[in-house]
Amino acid sequence: MAGTVTVPGSSVPSTPLLKDELDIVIPTIRNLDFLEMWRPFFQPYHLIIVQDGDPTKTIKVPEGFDYELYNRNDINRILGPKASCISFKDSACRCFGYMVSKKKYIYTIDDDCFVAKDPTGKDINALEQHIKNIMSPSTPFFFNTLYDPYREGADFVRGYPFSLREGTHTAVSHGLWLNIPDYDAPTQLVKPKERNERYVDAVMTIPKGTLFPMCGMNLCFDRDLIGPAMYFGLMGDGQPIGRYDDMWAGWCVKVICDHLSLGVKTGLPYIWHSKASNPFVNLRKEYKGIFWQEDIIPFFQNVTIPKDCDTVQKCYLYLSGEVKEKLGKIDPYFVKLADAMVTWIEAWDELNPATPAAENGKAK
Amino acid sequence: MAGTVTVPGSSVPSTPLLKDELDIVIPTIRNLDFLEMWRPFFQPYHLIIVQDGDPTKTIKVPEGFDYELYNRNDINRILGPKASCISFKDSACRCFGYMVSKKKYIYTIDDDCFVAKDPTGKDINALEQHIKNIMSPSTPFFFNTLYDPYREGADFVRGYPFSLREGTHTAVSHGLWLNIPDYDAPTQLVKPKERNERYVDAVMTIPKGTLFPMCGMNLCFDRDLIGPAMYFGLMGDGQPIGRYDDMWAGWCVKVICDHLSLGVKTGLPYIWHSKASNPFVNLRKEYKGIFWQEDIIPFFQNVTIPKDCDTVQKCYLYLSGEVKEKLGKIDPYFVKLADAMVTWIEAWDELNPATPAAENGKAK
Repeated sequence: MAGTVTVPGSSVPSTPLLKDELDIVIPTIRNLDFLEMWRPFFQPYHLIIVQDGDPTKTIKVPEGFDYELYNRNDINRILGPKASCISFKDSACRCFGYMVSKKKYIYTIDDDCFVAKDPTGKDINALEQHIKNIMSPSTPFFFNTLYDPYREGADFVRGYPFSLREGTHTAVSHGLWLNIPDYDAPTQLVKPKERNERYVDAVMTIPKGTLFPMCGMNLCFDRDLIGPAMYFGLMGDGQPIGRYDDMWAGWCVKVICDHLSLGVKTGLPYIWHSKASNPFVNLRKEYKGIFWQEDIIPFFQNVTIPKDCDTVQKCYLYLSGEVKEKLGKIDPYFVKLADAMVTWIEAWDELNPATPAAENGKAK
Repeated sequence: MAGTVTVPGSSVPSTPLLKDELDIVIPTIRNLDFLEMWRPFFQPYHLIIVQDGDPTKTIKVPEGFDYELYNRNDINRILGPKASCISFKDSACRCFGYMVSKKKYIYTIDDDCFVAKDPTGKDINALEQHIKNIMSPSTPFFFNTLYDPYREGADFVRGYPFSLREGTHTAVSHGLWLNIPDYDAPTQLVKPKERNERYVDAVMTIPKGTLFPMCGMNLCFDRDLIGPAMYFGLMGDGQPIGRYDDMWAGWCVKVICDHLSLGVKTGLPYIWHSKASNPFVNLRKEYKGIFWQEDIIPFFQNVTIPKDCDTVQKCYLYLSGEVKEKLGKIDPYFVKLADAMVTWIEAWDELNPATPAAENGKAK
C-alpha cells in the first residue's frame, strides 16, 4: 500500500496506516486481556473503551496501550439528559465511543474476538485489511464477478461499464468471523456445533438497493462520511429487545449510503470469534426482533429519502420521522426509538460541531 | 448430495447427477480434444455441439462421448428463415443448442476451458458444483454475509428475515475462471500478464435489482425456468459487434429473473481458462459495445416489465419492444436485434411446443 514501509519478514507496517486518523472502539464489561493478542496490530492506535454495566468496577487494560475509558457516569456527565439515547447493559453502548471520537475512521471490535489465521497460517492483521477496504473505492452500481476490482490481481471484468470504474467513496467495511458464526438464537439452538471454517478470500461491495445484516463485532467505518447514522439504538436495560443494535444501525446506514451514493463493503478481514453467547439468553433478547424484523426490513426496503436530504444528519432525521410514523404502529417501542434517534443526532452535533468542510457530510 | 453414491477415493459420483436431465452445449470451430480432460466428468452426459464457421469442415469428437452436432447447414435446415436469429462466426451460435435441447438443464462451456484445481490440488468437477448451485435455492431479496446459506457449514446469519429463508428457485449458475480472467480488450491491453490466481471459495446470489456481466464460458441454467431468455443476440458475421453475446443474454436474463422472482448465482465452480484471445481483434469486435453499454445498462436498470408478463416469453417479447423503442435510437442495429429477439422466441416456441406444465414458464 502507498505510504507505508513494511519491515522485512513482518506483516506489521513500520508506519501504521492511519495511525492518527483512526480510533478503536471497544465496548466491554471485563478486563481487556484480549488486547494482548492484538498488541502487534493495535498498540500504535488510540483506543476508546466504553465500559458497560457497573461504573464502580475497574476495567484493567494491558500496559502500553493508549486509551480513554468512559463508564456510565462519564456518559451521563458528558451528555446530560441526552444520555438517554445511549443503551445500558448492552454492547449498543459502543456508539457513544463513535460520538466522542475526533478521528476520521473508527474500528470497533468485541472483546471476545481474537486474531484469526489465514489459510497459510499467518496472523491476519484485521485492521490493516479494513483500512485497505475503506481507502479504496466501492462499486455499488454494478456487480463485478471477480469481487473487489481494486484488489491486487483483480480488475473489472468484460461488460463492466467504464463510466462506473472510478467507483464511489467507501463508508463502511464489514468484516467476518471464523469459528463461531454470527447466528441468531434459533439457529444457535438448532446447530450448536456449527463452526465457520470457510475462509473466503474476497471483499465485495454490497449492491445499491440491497440490505444486509451488519454485525458490529468487526466493523470499520468513516465517521466523516457516515458517523451520525451509526447509532446502535435502544437495547438492553429497560428495553424490550437486545442483539439488534448493529442490525438497526446497518439498515439505517445502508439506506443512507444508497441515498448518498456511498459504498459498503463486506468480506475480509476475518477475526476469530472465540465463544458463542448463551442461545437461551439470546432468544429472550431477540424474540421480539425476530417478529419485528419481518416488518422492519420491508420498511427499510421501501423507504425513499427525499432528494433535499443531502447530509447524513438530514437523512437520519428523516428516517426517524418515518420510523415513528410507520413502525410506531407495530409497537410503542419504535416511537421511543424514533425519539432517541433525534436525541442521538442532537448529541452528535453538540459533540461534533460542523466545520465548513464537514458540513455536507462528505468531507474526504 | 442426496440421491448419489460417491465411489471412495473418487470425486466422480457413481450415478452422475441429473444424467438424463442435462445437456452440455459446446460451440466450436475445431476438434474437441479439450474433452479428453473433462472425460471423467462429462462422459455420462449428452453433448450438443454447435459447429461454427465452415460447415464442410469435419469436427472430431473424442471417442466415447454421446453427442449430436449441428453445423450451419443444419441450423438453416431446421429453422428455415428463422435461422437469421442465430449468429454466424461467433460463439453466440451456441444458443441454438439451448433451443434444440429437450432437457431441463443446460451447461455450456468454451472449448478453451480446462479442468481447474482447487487449493488442495484436487480436480474441480465444475458440472457437479453447478448442479449443486442450481438445485439449491437462491436468496435475491436480502444479502447473506456468509454467502450461500445452503452450503455445508454455512447458514443464514443473525438478522436475516425468517420469512425469506426458504429462498427462491435458482435459474442460473454463473461459474468463474482461473488463469485468464474474462477482461475486455482495453484491460487485456493494459494488463497483458494478469492472471486470476485467487480461488474464492464462495457461491452467492446476485441481489434482486442488480445487473451483472454474465460470461458464457462456464454457465449453467434451467431451461424450463429461463431458457427462452438465453438468447445470445446477433454477433459476428455481418454484425457491427462481437463479444457482447453473453452480456446481452445476462442483462435480459437478470431483469426477467428479477421480475419472475428467480435466482441467479455466481462464484464457484472455477474452470481453467487456457488462453487469452487476441486483444487487438477483440478491440475491433468490442469497441461499439464499449460505447453502447453506457446506454444499454441504464436501459436495463430502468426497464420495468409489466405485471401481466407472467412467462419468460412474454417478458422477453416485452423487452424486445422496449429495445426497439429505446435503444433503436442509438443505432439501427438495435432495431434489427429487437426483431431477432422476436424471431428467436418464435423459433423457440416452434421447437419447444408448450405443455400444460411448462406453460407458465415455471415448471419445476
